[in-house]
Amino acid sequence: MDIHSLDTPFLAVDLDIFERNLQVMADYCRQHQLRLRPHAKTHKSPWVASQQLRRGAAGITVAKPGEAEVMSVLQPAELLVAYPTIGEGKLRRLARIVQASEGRTRITISIDSNFAAQAIAMAAQAANVRFGILVELDAGLHRVGLTTTEELLALVRIVHALPGLEFDGLAFYPGHIKNNAGIEAAHADIARLLERNLQAVRKAGFAVPIVSGGSTPSWKWAHLIPELNEVRPGTYVYNDRNTIMGGACRMEDCAAVVVATVVSTAVPGQIIIDGGSKTFSSDRLNGAPDAGFGLLLEDHAALFHKMNEEHGYIDVSQCQRSFKVGDRVRILMNHVCVAMNLQERAYGFRQGQLEREWEIAARGKLQ
Amino acid sequence: MDIHSLDTPFLAVDLDIFERNLQVMADYCRQHQLRLRPHAKTHKSPWVASQQLRRGAAGITVAKPGEAEVMSVLQPAELLVAYPTIGEGKLRRLARIVQASEGRTRITISIDSNFAAQAIAMAAQAANVRFGILVELDAGLHRVGLTTTEELLALVRIVHALPGLEFDGLAFYPGHIKNNAGIEAAHADIARLLERNLQAVRKAGFAVPIVSGGSTPSWKWAHLIPELNEVRPGTYVYNDRNTIMGGACRMEDCAAVVVATVVSTAVPGQIIIDGGSKTFSSDRLNGAPDAGFGLLLEDHAALFHKMNEEHGYIDVSQCQRSFKVGDRVRILMNHVCVAMNLQERAYGFRQGQLEREWEIAARGKLQ
Repeated sequence: MDIHSLDTPFLAVDLDIFERNLQVMADYCRQHQLRLRPHAKTHKSPWVASQQLRRGAAGITVAKPGEAEVMSVLQPAELLVAYPTIGEGKLRRLARIVQASEGRTRITISIDSNFAAQAIAMAAQAANVRFGILVELDAGLHRVGLTTTEELLALVRIVHALPGLEFDGLAFYPGHIKNNAGIEAAHADIARLLERNLQAVRKAGFAVPIVSGGSTPSWKWAHLIPELNEVRPGTYVYNDRNTIMGGACRMEDCAAVVVATVVSTAVPGQIIIDGGSKTFSSDRLNGAPDAGFGLLLEDHAALFHKMNEEHGYIDVSQCQRSFKVGDRVRILMNHVCVAMNLQERAYGFRQGQLEREWEIAARGKLQ
Repeated sequence: MDIHSLDTPFLAVDLDIFERNLQVMADYCRQHQLRLRPHAKTHKSPWVASQQLRRGAAGITVAKPGEAEVMSVLQPAELLVAYPTIGEGKLRRLARIVQASEGRTRITISIDSNFAAQAIAMAAQAANVRFGILVELDAGLHRVGLTTTEELLALVRIVHALPGLEFDGLAFYPGHIKNNAGIEAAHADIARLLERNLQAVRKAGFAVPIVSGGSTPSWKWAHLIPELNEVRPGTYVYNDRNTIMGGACRMEDCAAVVVATVVSTAVPGQIIIDGGSKTFSSDRLNGAPDAGFGLLLEDHAALFHKMNEEHGYIDVSQCQRSFKVGDRVRILMNHVCVAMNLQERAYGFRQGQLEREWEIAARGKLQ
């Protein structure tokens, strides 16, 4: 089957680029002695996760128990739930994964509150399992993570004192770094912050085996933080328009596009494609909100300026070429993670021929 | 099971409000002798569609063949694919629905191009079925739909001439009407446009059985268009913040909320909830893009100002009450259709008790 015979819109992955992206990140981490626990949020697929593990990833990172359940079929040595997991039902589900793996999969949860620590310890005892814990530090995104060394140290003490918990170390997410302008200074800030906090934790007598950070926008600079020994990038498997904008990849490193069909040319100067916010999400381009909801690869002068759920409005009045109803076009997504969450399947091509298709098995796992 | 025991985030439907919304629309249409072919895009659920049919809906409207396949289990008398369906594979799938229903379900497709008419006629002949056709007119949204009477009449002639097609009439979508300020004038404009086009079509000797329009934002004013005899509202089953903003419902007519949990309070003045763009979508409020990604019902002074995929950032610095990790909160969505597309299930409550849960079976049916 070739790329022209599937019903549109569909998500096409160039397998050569995809495999190169996996290898480049694996090589970088090996070179700099960084553990790689890639975030599955981008691909949401056990098959893709298996390709990451095969290339040396230490484990898989997820956000929600439902994603952990999907990834647990691989029985990875480590599942990191990099999210403050709150709720008895959710913690019971995580405990069941550990039990069902018969010791093969260890689960670690990153937290930033006493409430979470107490609840996880209770769940661990009730199920007779142990959970690893990473204590989360705010490195500048101001999302989750403790903001003072006092709070951080207090939570480390609580984790050590509670039964069923094992203190694995510290985690942070450098999500405030989206652009490589000033990126070395931003890494120096994080390095100083980590040093200050690690010093306090170690001085209090606690070993810190893991210091976990990393993201795709900042991936090439992770080695600039001396204390960092683990990264959790997600987007790098496919990359997207945001990754290009931030300077962390080139256009030719983008492995995934949406293939869509022109369904109407009734309004002069405009084409309507058969995908809108239900296909691409409504995410705008970081730092350039007026640059459209995706890039039309057939003609960069087109502007994908508006969407409804099933309709993409593309202004083609500045294009060199013309488009007619029935034409297929390729759109590079602004944000591949959220677009992937909207697909049932992905289609992997090599030189235009369909080689493999896979289910986005962890899509829509909100809980 | 009560509303407090499900893993969050989940979508909760108040069944009393939901049933009242269905009944109010059914009564309005009956009173004004309008056919009701509600759009399933909002609920994406055969169970909800069955409740609409039970209250007198003439059929169900969808956008994509995948949605038609899901709704076909009900064997409705009519399935309207209100979307220019382009692609041989998709048309084969629609033909199979007609064949499998053994004459119980008729499928109508709305189109705006000769290309679509020719392709649908070929698919109809190949499968030995007939498709109804609505020719689409641009009523002001400038999305799909023909923009001149000459083009409209030319396409009506083509549809009449092609084998396998039955001309059902005209369709338009008043999606440019999002606010009831000036709504009577907007309806007068549409009435004049329709009259002009209908006159030309009838003068050429063609009967026009159906004139199909209608949307939720404009629903109360549909009877102001004398020629209109069918409406296709979708959002009215649940309503949302956009519907309130537009003046087409009150707060107490909103039947659906997302229930989420506070997972972090580490950053002062802010709470993080366990749902972000993967739960709510990134859609902003129509006409008030800075009014946040949803309304926190517990305290309207909160501002849900930022999202990542799994994190909702809510500024609670102006709130009267305080929030702590583990608290559950209810968020009224900006746009319920896109949020529903992100859920696996919906949960129906009556007076706080879970009465029914159902699968969002047509979610993510992009093709």
